[in-house]
Parts: sequence; C-alpha cells; structure tokens
Amino acid sequence: MTDILIVGSGAMALLFGARLAASDHKVTLLGTWRKGIQAINQSGIRIAGDLKRDSFPAQGVTDLSKIPPVKLALLLVKSWQTERAAKQLARIMDPEGIVLSLQNGLGNLEILGEILGDRRATQGVTTYGATLIGPGVVRPGGEGIISVQPQPGLDPLIQCLKQSGFSIQEVENLSGLVWSKLIINVAINPLTALLNVKNGQLLDNKYSKDLMSLAAREAGNVASALGIEPGYEDPVSAVEAVAAATAENISSMLQDIRRGAPTEIDAMCGAVVRAGRSVNLNTPVNEIMLLLIQARENIMRISENENNDNNE
Amino acid sequence: MTDILIVGSGAMALLFGARLAASDHKVTLLGTWRKGIQAINQSGIRIAGDLKRDSFPAQGVTDLSKIPPVKLALLLVKSWQTERAAKQLARIMDPEGIVLSLQNGLGNLEILGEILGDRRATQGVTTYGATLIGPGVVRPGGEGIISVQPQPGLDPLIQCLKQSGFSIQEVENLSGLVWSKLIINVAINPLTALLNVKNGQLLDNKYSKDLMSLAAREAGNVASALGIEPGYEDPVSAVEAVAAATAENISSMLQDIRRGAPTEIDAMCGAVVRAGRSVNLNTPVNEIMLLLIQARENIMRISENENNDNNE
Repeated sequence: MTDILIVGSGAMALLFGARLAASDHKVTLLGTWRKGIQAINQSGIRIAGDLKRDSFPAQGVTDLSKIPPVKLALLLVKSWQTERAAKQLARIMDPEGIVLSLQNGLGNLEILGEILGDRRATQGVTTYGATLIGPGVVRPGGEGIISVQPQPGLDPLIQCLKQSGFSIQEVENLSGLVWSKLIINVAINPLTALLNVKNGQLLDNKYSKDLMSLAAREAGNVASALGIEPGYEDPVSAVEAVAAATAENISSMLQDIRRGAPTEIDAMCGAVVRAGRSVNLNTPVNEIMLLLIQARENIMRISENENNDNNE
Repeated sequence: MTDILIVGSGAMALLFGARLAASDHKVTLLGTWRKGIQAINQSGIRIAGDLKRDSFPAQGVTDLSKIPPVKLALLLVKSWQTERAAKQLARIMDPEGIVLSLQNGLGNLEILGEILGDRRATQGVTTYGATLIGPGVVRPGGEGIISVQPQPGLDPLIQCLKQSGFSIQEVENLSGLVWSKLIINVAINPLTALLNVKNGQLLDNKYSKDLMSLAAREAGNVASALGIEPGYEDPVSAVEAVAAATAENISSMLQDIRRGAPTEIDAMCGAVVRAGRSVNLNTPVNEIMLLLIQARENIMRISENENNDNNE
C-alpha cells in the first residue's frame, strides 16, 4: 500500500484513481473542482459501465494543508492548469518526490521542471482514455499503454501502476512519442470540436479528411525540422488509423467545448505554431485552428457570463 | 408596367419582387422551392416589419412552360444554383433579353455568359440585404446601393429598379467592386457560420478579429496580384467597418447553415483559392475555411438524411 497523490479530478484523474485504489493503494485526489472533490469524498470514485465494482474509495482534497509530504504524484490536469498545479506541488512535494505528467500536449514538462526542478518532474505518454460522466463519475475508454522514459526515483510509481493493471513500456525516445501523440491530437481534436463530430466521422467526407491530412502533415514537418522522429512513417495514415480505431470516441476537446470548459488548444496547435516558428516553418493550418478554437472559447465565456465552475 | 422575371424565391428575390411589384411592375418569380412559390401565389410576397403594406402580388412559377419570352430578368439564386438557372433562362429568354445577376461571389457572370451569350448576361454588386423569415416572407435589411456597369439593353431594367426606390450607381470598374465585396464576404461569412455568431460579434475578441484580418488580407493580396483595385485602401479596416455597420446581421452563410442549406462557400473562399492559384499565391486561410464549411455542409447532409427541400 503506497500513498499516491493524483493532481486533478477530471476523467483521467478518476480513471487512474479508481484503478490504483482497486489495488489497495491510498489515493488522494487534489482538485479545484469542488463538486467533483465532494462527490469523491461522499461516494468514492464511481465507474460508469459494467465493471465488477463500481465505486473505489479515495480522499478528495482542495486544501493543500491536509496533504502530508508527497513522494509519488501523477499529474492529470488540463495543460492550461499545469502552472498552477506545479506551484501547488512545489509546496507539498518531498525533496525526493517525483511527479509523472501523463498530460496531453507540449510544454507541460518544461513548466514542471522550472518550478519543481528537473529531477522531480518527468512525463509519459498514454493512449488510455476516459470520459467524464459527472462529478466523481467516469467512463473508461479501451485499454491503452503508458510509455515512460527511465528516470531515477520513478520505479515505485511504475510498480504501482503495473500492479493496478496498466500496461507500461519504457522507451528511450520519449520526445518522438510526445510528438507522435501531438500530431494525432492536432489533426483530430480541433476538427472534432469545430465540426461537433465523433472521431470516426472525420473520415466520412473528403473535406474533413483533407483537413486532418493538412494538419497532420504540417505538424509532422515541424517534428522533422526539429530532428524528431515520430513512431510512424506517415503522419497522415497514422492519424486516419487512430480516427478509425477511436471512431466512437468524443475527443477531449469536443468534451471540453460541449461543457463550456477551456480546451488544451494552446498546448496542441499553439505548441506546433511556436515550434514551427523556432525552425522558420509556417504552420497556417495549426494557426487557424488555434484561432478558431480560441475564438470559440472566448464566445463561450461571454455567453456563459464568466461561470468559472469548470472541472479539470 | 413592365414584365420582370426574378429567378429565385429566397430572401433577396422576395425583397426585389416586393419592391418592383409595389411600383406596379408585373413580377414573376421562378423558383424550385415549392413551398416558397406556393406561398407567393396564395398570399403574395409578404414583408415582415413595419412597412405601410405587408403583401405584394406576384406570380410564382416552377414550370418554365408558363412563362412568356423573357426580356428583363434579375438573377437572385445562390451561386451553386447559377448553372441550373442559366440553363432554364436559355430556354425562355428573348434573343434580345438581358439578365442582371446581383449574386454574391465570383464566377456567376462567367457561367451566365457561357450559357446565354455575353450580350444577354451582366452583373451588378449590391449592398442591399434581407433575411428569409419563411416561405414567401422576407425581412428587408437596411437601405443599400446597386452598382452596375453600363451595358446595351440594360437601361429598361435600371429604370424599373430606380422607380422601385432602389439606389443605383453606374460604375466603370465593376470587377473592383466585385472583389471588394468578395473580400468582405470571405472575411465575415465563413467565420460567422463556423462560430455561430452575428457579424458584430467577430469584433468582440482578438482571435476572430485576427482571423478576419488574415482572410481579408489574403484575398486582398490575390486581388492585387490580379491587378484589381478594390474600392478601399486597406482590406482589414474595410472588413472591420462592415462588421461594425452590420453588427446585428446574421450573415447569409450562417442563415444557410442554420437551415441546413448549401452555402455559397465555393463562390467565395473557393473562388479566392482558385484565383490565387492562377497567380501562384497560396491562400491557406481561405482554403481551410472552404474545407471546414464544406465538411460542415457534408455532415449536415448526412444528418438530415438527404432532405432536399432547401429553399433558394
């Protein structure tokens, strides 16, 4: 039984919390979404679907003073919350502690490293997915894999995740995997959010397929210019394969837009645009999708009259 | 009293039909939208708003055989219907007749000229606007202006329009005006449709303002490369001024999307993309908006299960 802190109370935080609790680890979720945290304390983490058990005990906290020094942490907040979460962690992490980010997008590890020191921060890439059903309630996606880079101090956390049934692989070229996922994300997420469709529907017409190709190829060109090799030959066929394999999924960005929450567009398309600039590559497709989603977020904020009770 | 054929039964066709009928011309509307045509025959063209009269008599037809040889015609169908309408006109137009297109977008005059001969086809640019309320019912926008190029045989139609209270100016550089309107259209219409906002809301945040600027500047660069001078110095401030002046308007493209009808995206962004290619200019902003609206149209068609009762 190991103490594990999960930062976040959204879909992925609940998925990891439930599984770790199921294998008898002591799970604490640190969140800012009060309804989500209350629900966890009242009823545990609840799983929607046909699992053997449907509730798993965990402690939910919003107040840092209630958390003992943290040795192992998983970071599962949205990218735009990384800086705030890192500052919270800086106040409660053991000097020897380590936090593993399994977030989407680019730039999170850099923020963590700057605030917590490179030795205490690491990242992985995961293909697990989950959908938030309501406060404290999650529907797991299919099985996936977590890829991490070997790092001193990370082993105990990896062991806990393995005990909890997660598939883990250690890789040497994590940045290749980070970009592989980023390329997929920029080609699927903003388009599903703009067109209000499931992942698979992007394959249903030539126009959205063309847009997926343009976005993927553009991000792939930036990766190449940076000297990064993604884990596949052709970004376009890779993206089409993922859209087909996840045809019935509602992308995280469409989930965000539907509930009026901020999206991770800046850590996705925004990161591609910035990386492109650093190697003198224009990235108009990613830039336009960035602006369109940002405009959408802004219009939602206006129309929702600054309702800030967003979950994370 | 002059016989005038209006091709179309949508918002603009109703607006022109009502005004021409009000000054005692004999107006026939030729359309494919059966409900719209039936409504006109039953109750005349009805005007929503606080005009002195609210119904104006007109004949609505769907059947070409009921129309005597046409000397004067106004073309007010959507751009994607131009070819079909031109083929209908070819069967019923007097050899000395003339048709004036007041449509949006680029490419309509070329189609008309090919099918009817250059002498019988001409175009103008109008800033009048109208909103379709229902079959046969229209809400006029504010006053505008119609710009036409002098052309043999056009005078009788111009006289009828002037009698009906329309402001008309004759200009020598019509292609400059066509492009002026096109630049405004590509910067406002697709964005309002994608973001589901009124024209003025595009000015409410930096992201949609940036997108408007990018689209306008890109189309402006194509016009310059073609040697065409729009009627304003700076496309960006021109577009912002129009968005402010029409702040409460629902753009025609957003009206189309909301009622599940095809849009004029191909005659707008599509035309800019093709014109750009002809002068070796990349137009990624217009291309992406073209693809996004085309994807949207395609998804609507699928979700509406091929319901083809679209008005025009």
